[in-house]
Amino acid sequence: VASPLMVSFCAGAIGPWWIDRIDPVFGESLPLAAKLSIRTDTPIAPVASVWNLSGVTSNTRYATRSEVDALVRKQEGLGRTQAICAALIPIRKSEAWWALAQDERRAIMEERSRHIGIGMDYLPAISRRLHHSREIGEPFDFLTWFEYAPEHAGDFEEMVDRLRATEEWKYVDREVDIRLLRTFD
Amino acid sequence: VASPLMVSFCAGAIGPWWIDRIDPVFGESLPLAAKLSIRTDTPIAPVASVWNLSGVTSNTRYATRSEVDALVRKQEGLGRTQAICAALIPIRKSEAWWALAQDERRAIMEERSRHIGIGMDYLPAISRRLHHSREIGEPFDFLTWFEYAPEHAGDFEEMVDRLRATEEWKYVDREVDIRLLRTFD
Repeated sequence: VASPLMVSFCAGAIGPWWIDRIDPVFGESLPLAAKLSIRTDTPIAPVASVWNLSGVTSNTRYATRSEVDALVRKQEGLGRTQAICAALIPIRKSEAWWALAQDERRAIMEERSRHIGIGMDYLPAISRRLHHSREIGEPFDFLTWFEYAPEHAGDFEEMVDRLRATEEWKYVDREVDIRLLRTFD
Repeated sequence: VASPLMVSFCAGAIGPWWIDRIDPVFGESLPLAAKLSIRTDTPIAPVASVWNLSGVTSNTRYATRSEVDALVRKQEGLGRTQAICAALIPIRKSEAWWALAQDERRAIMEERSRHIGIGMDYLPAISRRLHHSREIGEPFDFLTWFEYAPEHAGDFEEMVDRLRATEEWKYVDREVDIRLLRTFD
């Protein structure tokens, strides 16, 4: 297990990811920018940006041992050559969500919404990394970064549609959907 | 539920808490200082200090609804007039702990170690606030702040002894025990 990794997503004029579009799903959107860079230097050096979102990788919060083992068996890492499509989906959940106890959140998320199970259905095609932002004074609670090959773009749409139709998503009060393509210059 | 609150514990020459002693329990200790101040201004302004530990309050990570309800019914807040004794116990857990899945950590912490249950046995006498530090680049994973009246000092010793004898504590790889008394100047 890697130690927590602080990751900063900087939208501006530079970076290896070209921002294709930014769509608000719930609540306020984010301003458009040309490119995105992903920084993991610590401390994150200040950089000119249109917006800058940070999060930290962490331990599992809901997944059981059998789920973790199944995920590890099926998933592939970030940075695959053919995975030139990406999405960054910042999400904030409501106060009602955070006031729930651990067993209530787990029941809504997995037993009733199958969040982990839905993600598993799209492995290894869609790889992902979750970053936690709630405790570091950020506007969103989570930043999820996804990478996939163009032939899986339809699968990706299906996956986010399925997640957004769940009971868990009733607790999402802000969501922005940012789509990107890798540049090769 | 309050939003995450960033709290900074600053040991130095000033503050309303007099540091009685600092004892290493596992691993490296912290240097002695005279006083402790607790700061919640955001952003935390820099202050001259011997050491400075920060953490963030957050949602429950393990407690079930019935446990949360029982805690809320029994516990009292910080700042009680008679609670002039305090302890700050910074803890770091091993990589082996953080590599466990959620259900494994819950089983060790509560089903086998009764961490929540032990804390409940000392409510309302000993009030507490937990701060998370692992994701914010701090040397410890948790900072727990306790307050109690002098007549419950023996109960407090019993509580920490019981916790340190649990299976969960095999995963603690650094722990410092800081005891304090409130000053009235």
